[in-house]
Amino acid sequence: MKKVGIVMGSDSDLPVIRKATAILDGLQVPYEAHVYSAHRTPEQAREFFLHARENGFGVIIAAAGMAAHLAGAAAAATTLPVIGIPCTGPVFDGMDALLSTVQMPSGIPVASVGVNNGGNAALLAAEILAVEDEVLAVRLAEKRAADARSVLEKDAGIMGRLAD
Amino acid sequence: MKKVGIVMGSDSDLPVIRKATAILDGLQVPYEAHVYSAHRTPEQAREFFLHARENGFGVIIAAAGMAAHLAGAAAAATTLPVIGIPCTGPVFDGMDALLSTVQMPSGIPVASVGVNNGGNAALLAAEILAVEDEVLAVRLAEKRAADARSVLEKDAGIMGRLAD
Amino acid sequence: MKKVGIVMGSDSDLPVIRKATAILDGLQVPYEAHVYSAHRTPEQAREFFLHARENGFGVIIAAAGMAAHLAGAAAAATTLPVIGIPCTGPVFDGMDALLSTVQMPSGIPVASVGVNNGGNAALLAAEILAVEDEVLAVRLAEKRAADARSVLEKDAGIMGRLAD
Amino acid sequence: MKKVGIVMGSDSDLPVIRKATAILDGLQVPYEAHVYSAHRTPEQAREFFLHARENGFGVIIAAAGMAAHLAGAAAAATTLPVIGIPCTGPVFDGMDALLSTVQMPSGIPVASVGVNNGGNAALLAAEILAVEDEVLAVRLAEKRAADARSVLEKDAGIMGRLAD
Amino acid sequence: MKKVGIVMGSDSDLPVIRKATAILDGLQVPYEAHVYSAHRTPEQAREFFLHARENGFGVIIAAAGMAAHLAGAAAAATTLPVIGIPCTGPVFDGMDALLSTVQMPSGIPVASVGVNNGGNAALLAAEILAVEDEVLAVRLAEKRAADARSVLEKDAGIMGRLAD
Amino acid sequence: MKKVGIVMGSDSDLPVIRKATAILDGLQVPYEAHVYSAHRTPEQAREFFLHARENGFGVIIAAAGMAAHLAGAAAAATTLPVIGIPCTGPVFDGMDALLSTVQMPSGIPVASVGVNNGGNAALLAAEILAVEDEVLAVRLAEKRAADARSVLEKDAGIMGRLAD
Amino acid sequence: MKKVGIVMGSDSDLPVIRKATAILDGLQVPYEAHVYSAHRTPEQAREFFLHARENGFGVIIAAAGMAAHLAGAAAAATTLPVIGIPCTGPVFDGMDALLSTVQMPSGIPVASVGVNNGGNAALLAAEILAVEDEVLAVRLAEKRAADARSVLEKDAGIMGRLAD
Amino acid sequence: MKKVGIVMGSDSDLPVIRKATAILDGLQVPYEAHVYSAHRTPEQAREFFLHARENGFGVIIAAAGMAAHLAGAAAAATTLPVIGIPCTGPVFDGMDALLSTVQMPSGIPVASVGVNNGGNAALLAAEILAVEDEVLAVRLAEKRAADARSVLEKDAGIMGRLAD
Repeated sequence: MKKVGIVMGSDSDLPVIRKATAILDGLQVPYEAHVYSAHRTPEQAREFFLHARENGFGVIIAAAGMAAHLAGAAAAATTLPVIGIPCTGPVFDGMDALLSTVQMPSGIPVASVGVNNGGNAALLAAEILAVEDEVLAVRLAEKRAADARSVLEKDAGIMGRLAD
Repeated sequence: MKKVGIVMGSDSDLPVIRKATAILDGLQVPYEAHVYSAHRTPEQAREFFLHARENGFGVIIAAAGMAAHLAGAAAAATTLPVIGIPCTGPVFDGMDALLSTVQMPSGIPVASVGVNNGGNAALLAAEILAVEDEVLAVRLAEKRAADARSVLEKDAGIMGRLAD
Repeated sequence: MKKVGIVMGSDSDLPVIRKATAILDGLQVPYEAHVYSAHRTPEQAREFFLHARENGFGVIIAAAGMAAHLAGAAAAATTLPVIGIPCTGPVFDGMDALLSTVQMPSGIPVASVGVNNGGNAALLAAEILAVEDEVLAVRLAEKRAADARSVLEKDAGIMGRLAD
Repeated sequence: MKKVGIVMGSDSDLPVIRKATAILDGLQVPYEAHVYSAHRTPEQAREFFLHARENGFGVIIAAAGMAAHLAGAAAAATTLPVIGIPCTGPVFDGMDALLSTVQMPSGIPVASVGVNNGGNAALLAAEILAVEDEVLAVRLAEKRAADARSVLEKDAGIMGRLAD
Repeated sequence: MKKVGIVMGSDSDLPVIRKATAILDGLQVPYEAHVYSAHRTPEQAREFFLHARENGFGVIIAAAGMAAHLAGAAAAATTLPVIGIPCTGPVFDGMDALLSTVQMPSGIPVASVGVNNGGNAALLAAEILAVEDEVLAVRLAEKRAADARSVLEKDAGIMGRLAD
Repeated sequence: MKKVGIVMGSDSDLPVIRKATAILDGLQVPYEAHVYSAHRTPEQAREFFLHARENGFGVIIAAAGMAAHLAGAAAAATTLPVIGIPCTGPVFDGMDALLSTVQMPSGIPVASVGVNNGGNAALLAAEILAVEDEVLAVRLAEKRAADARSVLEKDAGIMGRLAD
Repeated sequence: MKKVGIVMGSDSDLPVIRKATAILDGLQVPYEAHVYSAHRTPEQAREFFLHARENGFGVIIAAAGMAAHLAGAAAAATTLPVIGIPCTGPVFDGMDALLSTVQMPSGIPVASVGVNNGGNAALLAAEILAVEDEVLAVRLAEKRAADARSVLEKDAGIMGRLAD
Repeated sequence: MKKVGIVMGSDSDLPVIRKATAILDGLQVPYEAHVYSAHRTPEQAREFFLHARENGFGVIIAAAGMAAHLAGAAAAATTLPVIGIPCTGPVFDGMDALLSTVQMPSGIPVASVGVNNGGNAALLAAEILAVEDEVLAVRLAEKRAADARSVLEKDAGIMGRLAD
């Protein structure tokens, strides 16, 4: 199976990334994670993205906050699908990162997920790899079914909790 | 090659969709387009999304404005990758559609592109199909190179235009 | 009396719902609460909304956060009045949920109350049932009068509190 | 059948109100419209709202822009359900009116629809009256079915329009 | 000297009001404070505003949060100058209250100060009364001079604090 | 009667100022208008504000757009009441000017009216001068009554206009 | 004198750049302009920025819209001062570009001017070069004086224009 | 070497300024700091800015919150480059200060950095001084290299931290 390349702009984004790797571990999807900054280590970041396809990666996840350029830098360097995770910074609840990630110019797409939503970035990466991988598609369907059962269990108990 | 399933919530979104189909035509990626509303025809929309994988689709593009639920409805019904295009409505410049599209709950990912950015949605769909399709990957790389040449041609003439 | 159907997208919305059920209990309005997610359990949610009128419900309250599609999904499945409560999520103070709830397309109305305002959702539901129920209308008027007295009692003591 | 009371803060809101009255006319729901300003004619507005229930109204629609207090003033004077339509003013795309309408304090609910969405306000009013009126409920269901057919007709022709 | 009439929509706004009364006490400006809600006690509020001029008030301060209608209700009932203080509520950092207070329709002005800025509301009220009161004008000028001295004292010590 | 000092940051704000002077002319309130920029002619602006009280002014109106510092510069130089009119600039619908005008630091109040609302700034200035001027107070009350009659005339004809 | 390096992300930004070059021409500051996209021609952009200092540039101006990464890419590649001009795109009035430009991570500064404000970017560039260039500093002071005279001329005629 | 003039509007901005002075200390750039308020001590602030160039300053940093006029007041009084730091105040996460700082009118530029980003303001000041100072330019390049090494060290350990 192709790997997921995960790049975070700062190790302060690690809690968001842990949500992603927990999902990938559960789905048995291989990944490799890096700390590369679009601004402080632009060349190392670019090298990684430029050679990602030939190095066995099938999809890139890039997480960054504030003027979040990392996903855009990835998208500029590869035609692999790039998933951007806008992360919260010290102000604005991640709106700066969301707009910096999602409002890409024509020709260089980034797939943005919600603010800090590392889990959904990982699921989206797995869905992309599952387009041609039926085993992984089954695992994704099983996770969906388990999530639904969890909601229904909460439904079964809700009138009792309200009565407490 | 797997098809791209394109669903728009209203035919008023057609100009955005035309940007997507022009890209897909250029890349020779097959697609099928529908007008289904998450609110006015929820069952037809759901039927389409539920059976999309078995019907030969590899990725879904959903375009909608205002309280844009269509991409979320798609993502709830399939584990294929779903790309959401937030469209501008009568007010708020598409911010309502962007937040309704991108801020999905954990477990049900949507890949959001920028507001009205049908072209990038199509490129992202092609990138997803190209993960396992080297011919399509080459076409994507050629388009990138052509886009770059177009920028460099403009660069060559810019001092002259400024001098006019 | 017809019942109020209360649906929350996640049991994390329970504090908001408790404000609603406290009001309904005080007004002696019957209700039934469920945890159904528009995205994780879309079919169970839809079944509940589709059959709500025949099952004795007169009004629906739907509470959800982030890309809050639950009230819209309810409104798409029934012509009973649907009240949406936009709930705060991890970022944006509920603005994402407010826009996802209130900016519905023409033809499928949702009645939005303020962010997290479970109490007002319950009062609005009771007002709807009281259009044809004079006993409930009297109870609503009495609650209003009691609320007014409470303000006037605070007014009576305010100069003293400022002098402390 | 009980009447819908429609109040607009200024006759500049008339285009929004026409969308509402067209819907009510189509559903054969009686209504009475007024121009009353919460700020310029507060007493006439209050008199209308205070006596609305005894004068045969079942629901109030209030449309206003900018610091839109009209729906709140209605809700303060009656326990009938009050539907607020936030209207666009000279700036801010109606966000000022939306927040002024929807963010009501506890105890005095307003049911907000989307910005300028007079049609949905009328449908919501009809849904409220239809809770105890089966004939009207059937008309609402028929309108829903007609709206769905309209979407499906557009779906049938969409591939042809894209090919043009 | 004419009095300042202070009205707050809820006693939860008391911390904001205390900043105002501390300033008025320091300037020896008489005031009278009330808790009146534009929505829960609209008639008592209106009575107070309608008779404010004849009861010896020269200016009104109204503090409220969320869909903050109180200052607007005051301005609708009197031609005395009305100062609005938008207060923070549970979400949106007071932006809802600011827009509800400042975006008044033509003909009914409200003078808005910054969010929660009770002190500036009191100073503005005093400035209004000082237009025709030279003694109060002198007190205001003295307060300004004292504030300036306080800044300059901090300036004198700042290099030392930075060196610590 | 004391004069109203009107200062605009640019003559592009003239349409907003004309709304103010039309109101002042109607109320027979004397005024003097200037174009002074807080940034391009800070000393002339400051001189005007510093000597405004001794030169017979009773209140200042300052209109500016973008990073609208003019009202704040006025308030820093005088203890006369200063009314700020935030004006729309090329982007952001005047939100930049509103926040630059209303969010003043403690000690230096500005009375903000709504975006571009020159008419309300003039009415507020007149209300301030009318605190000690009964003739002007009567004129303000007469204008209010005329505005109310205008609304009621529109109310009388509204059902006919809807029927057209 | 060192040159100003001007880079725009697209030739659609040319109207903004013309405002800059008009100012630089007037101040006799040499410049060189390029069209380089951070996303479509990242390597050409980076090469230009990496060698800017040795090629005789003293300051960089970068103009871009939407997810405006160009100024950040410049700042990542040089320690010359980089001025970012956020440009308006199809939606959001340039707020996306402003946040993408100004919210840079620690260590990589960008000097942002206002949205579309090419003129101020050029003046800021000239001010930077004038720190060590007294002749240019004099030209800047003369331009300031001329701007002030222009305001005062408008002031002299304003009462006449209001009387028309 | 020319000095950096640092002015803060209030000593509550000291934590932001400490980030700036730590950077300047590390780069051996001389500076002088002051507390001057654009509103409470406008004349002292103006005197400082007017004479900054002749007093040996090469660049000004101005930090302020809310309706942040300090950087604009500096820019109005000098043609030295002025760097504005928008600081967070009690509400709005510094958006009020950002817009008040960055949206300057044509002719009077301010270089805005991100909210609270004292470190980047200092680096930008040093970059400006380094245009003609090769020793300082080398120190800046060394700091960049050290920052990059710090990122790469974190990259080296990231897979281990994820495995914990």
